[in-house]
Amino acid sequence: MAEQTGEIRTERSFELERIVFFSDAVFAIAITLLAIELKIPELGAEPDVTSETLWRAVVAEWPQFLAFFLSFAIIAAFWVAHHRYFRYITRYDGRLIFYNFLLLFFVVLLPYFSGVVGEYGDLSLAVILYSVNLFALGTSSAVLWRHATSHQLVSDMLEPSTIRMYQRRGLVTPIVALLVIVLALVFGSRASLGLFLIFVFQRIVERRYK
Amino acid sequence: MAEQTGEIRTERSFELERIVFFSDAVFAIAITLLAIELKIPELGAEPDVTSETLWRAVVAEWPQFLAFFLSFAIIAAFWVAHHRYFRYITRYDGRLIFYNFLLLFFVVLLPYFSGVVGEYGDLSLAVILYSVNLFALGTSSAVLWRHATSHQLVSDMLEPSTIRMYQRRGLVTPIVALLVIVLALVFGSRASLGLFLIFVFQRIVERRYK
Amino acid sequence: MAEQTGEIRTERSFELERIVFFSDAVFAIAITLLAIELKIPELGAEPDVTSETLWRAVVAEWPQFLAFFLSFAIIAAFWVAHHRYFRYITRYDGRLIFYNFLLLFFVVLLPYFSGVVGEYGDLSLAVILYSVNLFALGTSSAVLWRHATSHQLVSDMLEPSTIRMYQRRGLVTPIVALLVIVLALVFGSRASLGLFLIFVFQRIVERRYK
Amino acid sequence: MAEQTGEIRTERSFELERIVFFSDAVFAIAITLLAIELKIPELGAEPDVTSETLWRAVVAEWPQFLAFFLSFAIIAAFWVAHHRYFRYITRYDGRLIFYNFLLLFFVVLLPYFSGVVGEYGDLSLAVILYSVNLFALGTSSAVLWRHATSHQLVSDMLEPSTIRMYQRRGLVTPIVALLVIVLALVFGSRASLGLFLIFVFQRIVERRYK
Repeated sequence: MAEQTGEIRTERSFELERIVFFSDAVFAIAITLLAIELKIPELGAEPDVTSETLWRAVVAEWPQFLAFFLSFAIIAAFWVAHHRYFRYITRYDGRLIFYNFLLLFFVVLLPYFSGVVGEYGDLSLAVILYSVNLFALGTSSAVLWRHATSHQLVSDMLEPSTIRMYQRRGLVTPIVALLVIVLALVFGSRASLGLFLIFVFQRIVERRYK
Repeated sequence: MAEQTGEIRTERSFELERIVFFSDAVFAIAITLLAIELKIPELGAEPDVTSETLWRAVVAEWPQFLAFFLSFAIIAAFWVAHHRYFRYITRYDGRLIFYNFLLLFFVVLLPYFSGVVGEYGDLSLAVILYSVNLFALGTSSAVLWRHATSHQLVSDMLEPSTIRMYQRRGLVTPIVALLVIVLALVFGSRASLGLFLIFVFQRIVERRYK
Repeated sequence: MAEQTGEIRTERSFELERIVFFSDAVFAIAITLLAIELKIPELGAEPDVTSETLWRAVVAEWPQFLAFFLSFAIIAAFWVAHHRYFRYITRYDGRLIFYNFLLLFFVVLLPYFSGVVGEYGDLSLAVILYSVNLFALGTSSAVLWRHATSHQLVSDMLEPSTIRMYQRRGLVTPIVALLVIVLALVFGSRASLGLFLIFVFQRIVERRYK
Repeated sequence: MAEQTGEIRTERSFELERIVFFSDAVFAIAITLLAIELKIPELGAEPDVTSETLWRAVVAEWPQFLAFFLSFAIIAAFWVAHHRYFRYITRYDGRLIFYNFLLLFFVVLLPYFSGVVGEYGDLSLAVILYSVNLFALGTSSAVLWRHATSHQLVSDMLEPSTIRMYQRRGLVTPIVALLVIVLALVFGSRASLGLFLIFVFQRIVERRYK
């Protein structure tokens, strides 16, 4: 089902566009900087290095690749949510800008915590730190949406059912992140796998409330 | 109070938009690069590293986190000011572009000085260097606004009271930065906490002149 | 032959523009980050370092420069393809966004693999890893175009011959990448030169189906 | 004298805007990455480090700061030229995109050569390498403008005198860069100061042909 909402555009001011494009740039830079945590293996002088040595070195980096993959998917998911929210947001106030910067603050921190979990992923603390940042990110995003919808900053064309659906979808990340924090305290670092549940639950919420 | 100023848009030319979007990109990259100064702790080989070691290493980085937080808030504040200025600026000349690049020059330098203050925050010189850059940044921003308003580059819809309010708000950062430089010379590096006054005073000015 | 297609614009919604500009930002950051893999030679203390030492050090980096040049050209080629696709794409759905993120995922990984091939370009494994990422990138791009054209997401002004031409052009990269993987397994790392065939074959396809 | 050219806008297509915004993003990232070459001094353990040690370390970095300042001004100048060119360019063809990528190629390389000249600025080779890149950058920019004006890609509103003025301004960088290369071969690295002549000569050309 293709979406066509060109009409909404005319209501949008230049300043609101700037907020959106600035956010897009921050999302884009953060998602690209994730790859900087993938270090090129340093294997020393030539004759001793073979394809096998390189293979082992690259394979040994799998936790970094997994962290990269997870974090890429998470930033993408939050960008998609942001994209959907601002499809309907047609006005702004100072607090919307504040909540948007709060969201971007935790987006910008994500590459750091992604690097920590890539390096020390078998320590439960690394998983907890990552999840705390994720909890804060998810909460900021949900608060931004709640503020926009409860302060008449959204288009009149937006139906209450969509508002509710996005509200529920917005709760998925904070709840899963909290769950993973508790699990990591009890069962250790393997709890990190629970973070992938975010994508499953988001799908379920979307299907149910469509 | 939601702001709606879509009408201003039609006056704005494609070239002015480019100046704005280029600036947005520089702001966005600088604010995201701040996080690069947050180094992932290097704790050596696996068996010796525990959640406790990692915790101590992360906690030991608190000055870097504080510098990151302060610098993020400062770049955000200057972006908001830039956003407000260009809401009213509808024409440009060569000097506006020059002042805009001057502003961006000090924005681009901020991650460097933020890194210096994160690393050597208990040396008064680090605090002074950071504040000198901040003084230059604040002054460029204020000069840009003065130039725009005194050379008919702004919309006719802009009221004199708003011009004055932004002028006064623009003086907050240079004055606080100067104050912190003097305090750092007398009382040492703890003067850095004075930088947080910027956000307090900006609020006060906004409230008073609204 | 200059292209003028201003009319298409009016159909495009603000959200579609955001997808495009977000992608542009990711492409732009990835292409600029490539240069970060070019390390400034570290030659130690002053008196011993001469223009000759520096020259030898810079010349010794030629594999990095070659990898940079190749990767720059590849990202540019994929940006041009993306630019052409979205010239005609006027609607979007969830799967288009998904395929677009898939494409960006492999764009973001390219600087990493470019660094690996710059450092270990005489190991066949480095060439293979680079080509696997390139294969995935090319395939995502081709799948995105197929999805858009087969799900009525494109402008009615788009002619079937253009659809087919872009489809064939889109196969060039995956096929050449596969070929280079096989050649690298048989003949070793020199197979990497085969990657430059991408640009030759893309030209041929464009000429033939114009 | 404020410039107002809003009318040109309506002619511009979405694809041309994408080319411009993509270029803006690359310019913005390159100009911000320049600051990454400014390394935060590593001065070891706390008690031995004083404001004096830090001061000496920061002052010792003056060649890096000078290279940063020069490169920032150069990228800014080329962005301004690009901004002016695309004010008049209203159509595009494949070769315009090619020349634009050529230009961006040397923009992206500039932070690397800026780092080399910051580190080894007293070796004539460093100055020569930097100037060669600058020569290529200036030539690409001039070629782009020549192509656009000689292939009817520009607005009819563009006067021949403006075309000529930009052509002459575009020759300044390649000529000064060549001069500095020759001077560096004869007189050594101090020739680098000649690069600042670019800004002087650009001013003179602008004044004369206005």
